[in-house]
Amino acid sequence: MEDKKIKAQKWFRTLRDQICAEFEKIEDELTDSLSPVGRFVRTPWDRPEGGGGEMSVMKGRVFEKVGVNISTVHGEFSEVMRKEIPGASEDPRFWASGISLVAHMCSPLVPAVHMNTRMIVVGGARSADRASPEPSPIAFSEGNAGGNFKQWFGGGADLTPMYPNDADTADFHDAFKATCDGFAPEYYAKFKKWCDEYFFLKHRNEPRGVGGIFYDYVNTGNWQNDFEFTQEVGKTFATIYPALVRRHMFEPWTDEQREHQLRKRGRYVEFNLLYDRGTRFGLMTGGNTEAILMSLPPEVRWP
Amino acid sequence: MEDKKIKAQKWFRTLRDQICAEFEKIEDELTDSLSPVGRFVRTPWDRPEGGGGEMSVMKGRVFEKVGVNISTVHGEFSEVMRKEIPGASEDPRFWASGISLVAHMCSPLVPAVHMNTRMIVVGGARSADRASPEPSPIAFSEGNAGGNFKQWFGGGADLTPMYPNDADTADFHDAFKATCDGFAPEYYAKFKKWCDEYFFLKHRNEPRGVGGIFYDYVNTGNWQNDFEFTQEVGKTFATIYPALVRRHMFEPWTDEQREHQLRKRGRYVEFNLLYDRGTRFGLMTGGNTEAILMSLPPEVRWP
Repeated sequence: MEDKKIKAQKWFRTLRDQICAEFEKIEDELTDSLSPVGRFVRTPWDRPEGGGGEMSVMKGRVFEKVGVNISTVHGEFSEVMRKEIPGASEDPRFWASGISLVAHMCSPLVPAVHMNTRMIVVGGARSADRASPEPSPIAFSEGNAGGNFKQWFGGGADLTPMYPNDADTADFHDAFKATCDGFAPEYYAKFKKWCDEYFFLKHRNEPRGVGGIFYDYVNTGNWQNDFEFTQEVGKTFATIYPALVRRHMFEPWTDEQREHQLRKRGRYVEFNLLYDRGTRFGLMTGGNTEAILMSLPPEVRWP
Repeated sequence: MEDKKIKAQKWFRTLRDQICAEFEKIEDELTDSLSPVGRFVRTPWDRPEGGGGEMSVMKGRVFEKVGVNISTVHGEFSEVMRKEIPGASEDPRFWASGISLVAHMCSPLVPAVHMNTRMIVVGGARSADRASPEPSPIAFSEGNAGGNFKQWFGGGADLTPMYPNDADTADFHDAFKATCDGFAPEYYAKFKKWCDEYFFLKHRNEPRGVGGIFYDYVNTGNWQNDFEFTQEVGKTFATIYPALVRRHMFEPWTDEQREHQLRKRGRYVEFNLLYDRGTRFGLMTGGNTEAILMSLPPEVRWP
């Protein structure tokens, strides 16, 4: 398991570097802008209880504010979290590594986006394995033969256009469908539905965006294959999103469209602070506030 | 009790009218502005389960966005609410009437403010009274001799300056202290502390503003006296806040101060969506989304 942890952690950093390089390239491509070209600024942070991470934030002329956070943390789940996380009531020790990205764009014609993938390990005690109820649609494998822990992958990506457009939506969905289909026939339908259900603002009775995929608790018993799936999700994002940005970044927009974007961003804030599990749990359990709230848009209106 | 409900409901409407008239007068007083003078726009709304309310919103040249909402609603508490509200597990019927106000100001030198007062009645069944544990620092009275219900007043007011200033803070606190001291010697210390504890952003380890008072479950057994206290809280607000606005509304401000204001408003949004009981319960239990989120600032930045 230690070897697997190192491989996953290394991958999230590699993916971060690839995405940041691609996003900076996009900044360079908008040559007719008067605004200065954006570059990522990196800020490492430590978690007093164990581990830490690195925020990368760019404020540019295509990307109004994009944050890419990688982190590898370990410790013990708090009392509150133990009730929420599968296996944590038996052994509260955990290890988690992942990448999390949110992009808010200058142009109201370029969709905002969110992507996150992670590997989680809970437990590690030498006591005998105990059974626990299935926590999710994706069953835990009994294949964790090497130790008394639970391990899984989670993540996903979803698109939030200000002006949804059938071609963009179809291309985004098709890209993730192809990736999912390469691993298991049931993945795509399941993960797309999960995404639609998760990114929904009940109080507005409206979805946050046009969806994508959302998965959690993925452990088929074949770690290498599950890891490859999570790698492919990251690579798919790193291909499809830049393509959508390039498709729209040169189009002129109006003040009215910008105003619409600023209002639509209000919904993004409402979702993240009212519903998002990562945001709420992170803030309530002493996570890094700056890294967690990096997801909030740079400018918002509730007129 | 029916007579008391009518008196309270009428008062909240009268207070609304007085405050709106005073705020419109302030708009008129900023004669050297090029922006158009603001006027309140009223929008009534119905609650399908019983009752309704009226939003009053003004977008002006002193008040960038101020919302004053009055409502009188009745019905049965949901399962979730029954666990939270004293007495509701015995008889889930409720009646509630109140006024709620949030002002976000054009000038970063004029403090933002929040005020809310309400009368609540829970129950009304003909079955025998049953004892329930004390829910709060302010004891329920056993003086509800007229019926099998619990009734109380709640509310408060708190100030959020972008640049706190000792004179403003002292004047705001002194006004509410004088009001509290006219009713009970312990009120002010108790209600000020409650306010400081409530309006606190744990994830930032910082208070939302400079405080004020926050009270709930006030029932001394003398309804008339308790009602007068809630009336006095409203009148105190209607005197002290306009005085503070007039003190600063004519002062020029810089772009830097405006930027600071927009960032500080982000904290207001974080508090309201992450912690505020009224906001979260209201949205989760099918309240009027527009009326509840009227409290969000018109323009915000998380740079």
